Amino acid sequence: MKKAIVLLSGGLDSTTALYLAKSRGFDEIYALTFLYGQKHDRELKSATAVAKAAGVKEHKIVHLLLNQWSGCALTDPEIEVEDGNIERRDIPATYVPARNMVFLSVAASWADALEITDIFIGVSEVDYSGYIDCREEFIRAMENAINQGTVLGVEKHRHITIHAPFMRMTKAEEVRLGIRLGVDYGQTWTCYRGDDKPCGTCDSCLLRAKAFAEAGIEDPLTLS
Amino acid sequence: MKKAIVLLSGGLDSTTALYLAKSRGFDEIYALTFLYGQKHDRELKSATAVAKAAGVKEHKIVHLLLNQWSGCALTDPEIEVEDGNIERRDIPATYVPARNMVFLSVAASWADALEITDIFIGVSEVDYSGYIDCREEFIRAMENAINQGTVLGVEKHRHITIHAPFMRMTKAEEVRLGIRLGVDYGQTWTCYRGDDKPCGTCDSCLLRAKAFAEAGIEDPLTLS
Repeated sequence: MKKAIVLLSGGLDSTTALYLAKSRGFDEIYALTFLYGQKHDRELKSATAVAKAAGVKEHKIVHLLLNQWSGCALTDPEIEVEDGNIERRDIPATYVPARNMVFLSVAASWADALEITDIFIGVSEVDYSGYIDCREEFIRAMENAINQGTVLGVEKHRHITIHAPFMRMTKAEEVRLGIRLGVDYGQTWTCYRGDDKPCGTCDSCLLRAKAFAEAGIEDPLTLS
Repeated sequence: MKKAIVLLSGGLDSTTALYLAKSRGFDEIYALTFLYGQKHDRELKSATAVAKAAGVKEHKIVHLLLNQWSGCALTDPEIEVEDGNIERRDIPATYVPARNMVFLSVAASWADALEITDIFIGVSEVDYSGYIDCREEFIRAMENAINQGTVLGVEKHRHITIHAPFMRMTKAEEVRLGIRLGVDYGQTWTCYRGDDKPCGTCDSCLLRAKAFAEAGIEDPLTLS
């Protein structure tokens, strides 16, 4: 059995990452989801459904209130999620400080406990719109820190790898790949707002719609 | 005002680190304490008392259940804290996987939100008894990851420093320094067990007793 930990938010990227890990022979998957003070739990429901459908070995949901200081539109009830502008390059109001660093550290803790050397994260530099912790340079720096800060890396001389398979892929390429791998995108959730249906106007909805349009595929989530 | 974040467990090292930060001109201190599933909350009471006595600007207590997978004697009710053997070099049963990495990541998140460039942690390589995440090499790797994974480091071109002032100090040197800086060690807590008084026999108590003995100072905690 090849084991891997997959950071699973229940969104498009992390769900595709999970299926890609399976296709690469990681047949025992440990999925890790964070409740970090998001305003809605719609993503969590998606993560749970995806983990179940993909037959993961274990799905852990970790509570960690990063909203204590985030001043971020995803977690702060005082700040509205704005309608999107996916062309802009500044730091969006939906930035949660150092979120991927915290998530990867907790994943490393679990990896160290289970002696798992492979961690998957669905970040991409291509659609990088101000999320600095999605960059290759950060991922490699974090990988190095994990190899220096775990028993697995230091004492047991095993190399821990952070797999970021979409780093240089567009979201459209990712969706095409996901469809080939059997992802049911109807189960995933992307919208920053937590209504019954995707709002269609936030940054995240706009990027998703663009990806499906470019891929020439209809999004099952908006069809239903 | 010079601001700093101090990781404060309520133990000897982190308390001394807090006072050292103050003595270096960091007059606005943000103390960060973790409840990670320890069996007892004696340390937490100490952290709260220390933070108050030192007049910190803010003291945050973050809940994060690393005991979900730690299999560690500090958090797992099935595993006993053993009597100590401070000469051994293997990984102690009190190792919580990647604990300092998780703590520093969360500190980085807070630092990014508050635009604070200085983080203090009271680790030492000298008393390194199997805790691989206390090594200089790990701290520098983590500092690099933080500078690559925060808005402060990447977009605002500020350098974030992890201060580990005791890295090459013995605990005895640290205690002597702390006394000069006005630390009340009677407020701190070191024992791995959570009884009313320190057990005197766990690893942590043995290291503390050795430090005070070498420093030629009586420990106010065992006096009372």
